[in-house]
Amino acid sequence: VPVLPHFDRLCVVLVSTRNPLNIGAAARAMSNLGFSDLRVVNPFEASFREARSAVGAAPLLKRAKEFKSVADAIADCSLVVGTTAAHNRELHQPLKPLPQAGQLILKRLSASRVALLFGSEKRGLSNFDLSYCHWLLRIPTREEHGSMNLGQAVAVCLYELARTAHGGKQANILPERQKDAHRPASAGELDRVTGLLLEALRASGYLGRDVAAKEEKVRRIVRRLDLSVADAEVWLGMLRQIAWKLSPKT
Amino acid sequence: VPVLPHFDRLCVVLVSTRNPLNIGAAARAMSNLGFSDLRVVNPFEASFREARSAVGAAPLLKRAKEFKSVADAIADCSLVVGTTAAHNRELHQPLKPLPQAGQLILKRLSASRVALLFGSEKRGLSNFDLSYCHWLLRIPTREEHGSMNLGQAVAVCLYELARTAHGGKQANILPERQKDAHRPASAGELDRVTGLLLEALRASGYLGRDVAAKEEKVRRIVRRLDLSVADAEVWLGMLRQIAWKLSPKT
Repeated sequence: VPVLPHFDRLCVVLVSTRNPLNIGAAARAMSNLGFSDLRVVNPFEASFREARSAVGAAPLLKRAKEFKSVADAIADCSLVVGTTAAHNRELHQPLKPLPQAGQLILKRLSASRVALLFGSEKRGLSNFDLSYCHWLLRIPTREEHGSMNLGQAVAVCLYELARTAHGGKQANILPERQKDAHRPASAGELDRVTGLLLEALRASGYLGRDVAAKEEKVRRIVRRLDLSVADAEVWLGMLRQIAWKLSPKT
Repeated sequence: VPVLPHFDRLCVVLVSTRNPLNIGAAARAMSNLGFSDLRVVNPFEASFREARSAVGAAPLLKRAKEFKSVADAIADCSLVVGTTAAHNRELHQPLKPLPQAGQLILKRLSASRVALLFGSEKRGLSNFDLSYCHWLLRIPTREEHGSMNLGQAVAVCLYELARTAHGGKQANILPERQKDAHRPASAGELDRVTGLLLEALRASGYLGRDVAAKEEKVRRIVRRLDLSVADAEVWLGMLRQIAWKLSPKT
């Protein structure tokens, strides 16, 4: 999956994050999905330092910038989007569900920088933080349990952006070699499978009387297996051995 | 956001999870997005107990079931999907990107139970675990950093299911209950087919040396048959007869 060039224009902004594990998780999801610009505003106590010094901290985390205010962190962005569970709260900005929000963010990224804000684990973004946002984004969660874990919310938002951006172009992630093996078996190959299966069933006594009807049934059931070329080969090998073992030895 | 009725048919199966925080994170994402059936296979040391006793553990976590093997955990599911970063690894099952996989899982959920497997933080799912899977799912991450955090991977997969389900308004157009015969076979039924086939192959001399690898191969190839309940019955009858005929008579 190639990284899209304008993904580096998305700024993930973590505001007042308390838990260093969540800063690390956000960085990891960004790296997984092809984003690179992490910004941190007033992290709780030493959590930013701790996250940075964690073993295996991604280079991304080392490049992350720290800011004293939301205003400073987003100064170079032309669109600022806040994330919220929108629970028990009066909102003063338009609220869009993630799939729709993703399309709008992508469109803007093709022209300029966009900031995506995530609030603290306990309280989310404050009304003061939200006042810097053009509009708000909500991940469609259940009413009864709307508030997501911070690292997971970051991952879901970035996945949605990556999914929408790549559109239908990521469908083909199979190596050539695998594609070949998954080619469907030909009628001739299916006939050979059927023939050997019938031979084994005949020798085992399964066919009994009314052989013709049983044979048709077996032919149909083999067609329904929807075998690939590679799997048909394996079945032929297994059935050949079974049929041989069942055949009367002279 | 209403919970869709068939979401309770999705079984999230965590295999050999090491970190209790990740079990908790998986449970939280399930609760956020409307899923309820969490199953845990051989969690590392005391991590399941620890996750369960954690402050704020959701009721969902308390209802989670523990299993000794993947086979037991998925026995009542008719579709078993493994998640993988597919990195530096030869895969024996078809691999589908998440958006496409989500549609297939949703379709199957309207008729029967589906298991979605997540492996351990260090190694993911083993080849043995994967041999129980009908096919594999990959979250489209960067080649250079493909492996996601476990809790984030669960959240992203479930978000995709919720998004797709609500997006198409599938809640209101649930397909009618399929006829019993065309219902897909359960993992338990597939296990019986596999068992009889292995018995026949063993008696025929097909397994030879390296029995474990051959057995895994057979398990995978049976999963790929995509059998219905009715066809599984027919196969059981045929294989039973063949295995009986091959067995040494006293």
